[in-house]
Amino acid sequence: MYFNSNEKEHIIVIGGNVSGLAAASQARRNTPDAEITVLESGNYISYGTCGLPYFISGIIDDINKLFVYTPRFFEEERKIKILLNHKAIKLNPQKREIFVQTLESNLQKILNYDKLVICSGAVPFDLGIEVSRLNNVFFFRNVEDTLRLKDFIGKNIPKKAVVVGAGSIGLLMAEALTKIGIKVTVVEKAQRIFSGFEDEISAILQKKLIAEGIDLMLGTRIASALPDDNGLVKSISTNNEETLNAIETDLIILSAGIRANTDFVKGTSIELGKSGAIKTSPKLQTAYSNIYAAGDCACVKNIVTGKCDFIPTANNAAKTGRIAGDNITGGDIIFPGSAGTTVDQIFGFEIAKTGISFVEALDLNYNAVKITGNYSSHAKVIPGTQTITAALIVDIKTRKILGAQMIGKEGVAKRIDTFATAITCQMTIDDVYMLDLSYSPGTSTVWDPVNKICGQALLDLSKRRF
Amino acid sequence: MYFNSNEKEHIIVIGGNVSGLAAASQARRNTPDAEITVLESGNYISYGTCGLPYFISGIIDDINKLFVYTPRFFEEERKIKILLNHKAIKLNPQKREIFVQTLESNLQKILNYDKLVICSGAVPFDLGIEVSRLNNVFFFRNVEDTLRLKDFIGKNIPKKAVVVGAGSIGLLMAEALTKIGIKVTVVEKAQRIFSGFEDEISAILQKKLIAEGIDLMLGTRIASALPDDNGLVKSISTNNEETLNAIETDLIILSAGIRANTDFVKGTSIELGKSGAIKTSPKLQTAYSNIYAAGDCACVKNIVTGKCDFIPTANNAAKTGRIAGDNITGGDIIFPGSAGTTVDQIFGFEIAKTGISFVEALDLNYNAVKITGNYSSHAKVIPGTQTITAALIVDIKTRKILGAQMIGKEGVAKRIDTFATAITCQMTIDDVYMLDLSYSPGTSTVWDPVNKICGQALLDLSKRRF
Repeated sequence: MYFNSNEKEHIIVIGGNVSGLAAASQARRNTPDAEITVLESGNYISYGTCGLPYFISGIIDDINKLFVYTPRFFEEERKIKILLNHKAIKLNPQKREIFVQTLESNLQKILNYDKLVICSGAVPFDLGIEVSRLNNVFFFRNVEDTLRLKDFIGKNIPKKAVVVGAGSIGLLMAEALTKIGIKVTVVEKAQRIFSGFEDEISAILQKKLIAEGIDLMLGTRIASALPDDNGLVKSISTNNEETLNAIETDLIILSAGIRANTDFVKGTSIELGKSGAIKTSPKLQTAYSNIYAAGDCACVKNIVTGKCDFIPTANNAAKTGRIAGDNITGGDIIFPGSAGTTVDQIFGFEIAKTGISFVEALDLNYNAVKITGNYSSHAKVIPGTQTITAALIVDIKTRKILGAQMIGKEGVAKRIDTFATAITCQMTIDDVYMLDLSYSPGTSTVWDPVNKICGQALLDLSKRRF
Repeated sequence: MYFNSNEKEHIIVIGGNVSGLAAASQARRNTPDAEITVLESGNYISYGTCGLPYFISGIIDDINKLFVYTPRFFEEERKIKILLNHKAIKLNPQKREIFVQTLESNLQKILNYDKLVICSGAVPFDLGIEVSRLNNVFFFRNVEDTLRLKDFIGKNIPKKAVVVGAGSIGLLMAEALTKIGIKVTVVEKAQRIFSGFEDEISAILQKKLIAEGIDLMLGTRIASALPDDNGLVKSISTNNEETLNAIETDLIILSAGIRANTDFVKGTSIELGKSGAIKTSPKLQTAYSNIYAAGDCACVKNIVTGKCDFIPTANNAAKTGRIAGDNITGGDIIFPGSAGTTVDQIFGFEIAKTGISFVEALDLNYNAVKITGNYSSHAKVIPGTQTITAALIVDIKTRKILGAQMIGKEGVAKRIDTFATAITCQMTIDDVYMLDLSYSPGTSTVWDPVNKICGQALLDLSKRRF
């Protein structure tokens, strides 16, 4: 069965979220006459994955507010065909064919493309648990997961929840569930939460989580999660010796990390890197000249290390999607890479980072130093100052900044951007110490915290020298 | 009369605010044995000039909260002598003498130095009005001005005020006076407020000022301000033909700009640049090897134009003060220059800029373009988004960013820092479009406004090319 029977060039995009829709839209701008089709494995497109927890907590009261664009908008305004419930299951690059499972009918289709952009995103680790067969165990990755959880909560009024994994999604969910009155236990295999952050940063949030009544079980893995006759997992056992009894629970969120959703490219010449992410050229081309990849399913160049990394952020997805859609239709843009910049808002804190961590720097054989400090978010004369705790990773030899992290209740998210910019430009601590950053008493201190921590690093390095 | 009679090196710093105290403190760190004296013309040191309006509005309820350090702290902890009410009136670099007027006794002293750092700050334009002889006319530059105004308001409960000058201090005062129930008329010689900003930016604040009940008289100069028998100016006349009658007022604030406070160096070889600011080497040395200058009284290198500019910000004062104090005691630091970054918070808006304006760019013969746009401060799904209006000045030939400005109720101050960093690094719009800036739904949009306006600039330039 061939979808495309006319003579127009047919561009298929796999994936209907941030990167896929950016790619399709950019392809449309460049090629008004091409036939463009987006295949979306689920029933929804164009939602901000990062916004989903806010629907659970009720801050977003209507799921429809999450959708930036509707399928109809794409079909009518951009003449881009949207095929929902079309899941790519196999690729034949020689024949330019995609095998697609249409979930509703369980039919398998073969679609032909001239050009293909893979924006298939990422999927959560299932830890060997068959989530689809359990009634109170949830992933939290897409709209379907979210609606299923919201429905479950509404119908069952759970009192206790276990969140597995203390990364970004796990902690956002721990907050969302706590806010609607559910007692949350977070089970995390590392010895602390948010292990991508420095100890000094994550410890502040960890303390806050405990203060908010969340039970943290660190250094803990799930040993078993067996369902009862109703398909409900009412208790889980762990490898934690201190936990003599199993943890009783009403619902379980599996948020123990994600990997690229790229199983369907296996058997082709498309190379996979870290976490199964597709390796591309700097112009986001795969091993096949007519196949590009972007978003969470693709590697991005880490601008600090130059290496191919799995950095599944919306910021990267939007940019790489647009570039892939541009380059596959005649564009010639190099993606300069990602600083790995992230920020999360959890229990009133902003926690943000950019660049690499101290451990990563040491692993990469940098002679690195970590500087940490506490700074006032704005001048003390104006009420409401908050403490910003910051960490800076510096290469001692070149004095370049390799990474920066911050946590605080004010002024963190956009200060990390100054560091992201500085890292992109390979600035030294000397340079950033002297950066002319904005000051007014309500927004900063005369020396901004960004300047200050670099001053502290200069002092630290000068002591090492003598 | 010689102040210093022992054999220790004597370093004198003229000026006891941000730059002077930074210079003295850094000199102390480098030279534990030197004798260090700070001459302050007023009765107070170490106050944030930018904080003064908040004492008038009442946000700061105690003047003492404005002082970061006391004279006693400097004398005891840092062994730095603070001489209050010591105003430098003449300099003799050959003899290494400063003539000082001690305001209390009206005595004139001569002080000898081995090394001198001039941090004498700036003084307001008086527009030919003898403020010292009038009882209801005020400058607003230092603590004395502030206390005098606060006292006047407390005793006289004024109902109407005229603020002359619609720059940063003028508008902060217009807000502070409005907040305590005084009806304010702002008289400004330009045709709009805040003329250092682009029309598109300042217009938003201008609309807000009017909405807050402030009368704006633009394109207007004061023609006369004559006192009555009690030394009170009860009405002023202007050159504005539409104002048939004089403006009646209970008090007048003169905030029509400032110039470097450098009259006392006249007759020496110290060169003065724009607004009377002292020209220095990149290491902040004047024509005399033992005299350095820093802060508002000194020129700074504009990092966009490379020229010597008058950019009297606290951010520059802190940095140049520290460098001058360092270099005069053996340091060897080059001040890289200033991007002219500023931010003010007025009536709930943050208004910020960095780099040069469109008019400045054209005056400097850049083939420049101005891009403007409105952006959401964070994702629309999270309540409370604010509109950020931004302007970008781009050099068409090199595609480098020359300047950026923003106004909005959220997320402006620290976003301008990203542009300040980008301008410092001479980044192009292509570079900044691809910057990996932090995203979470409550703090940004997937493409940050900083990325977005650069994307808009790319589109604009691509249209010009074809």
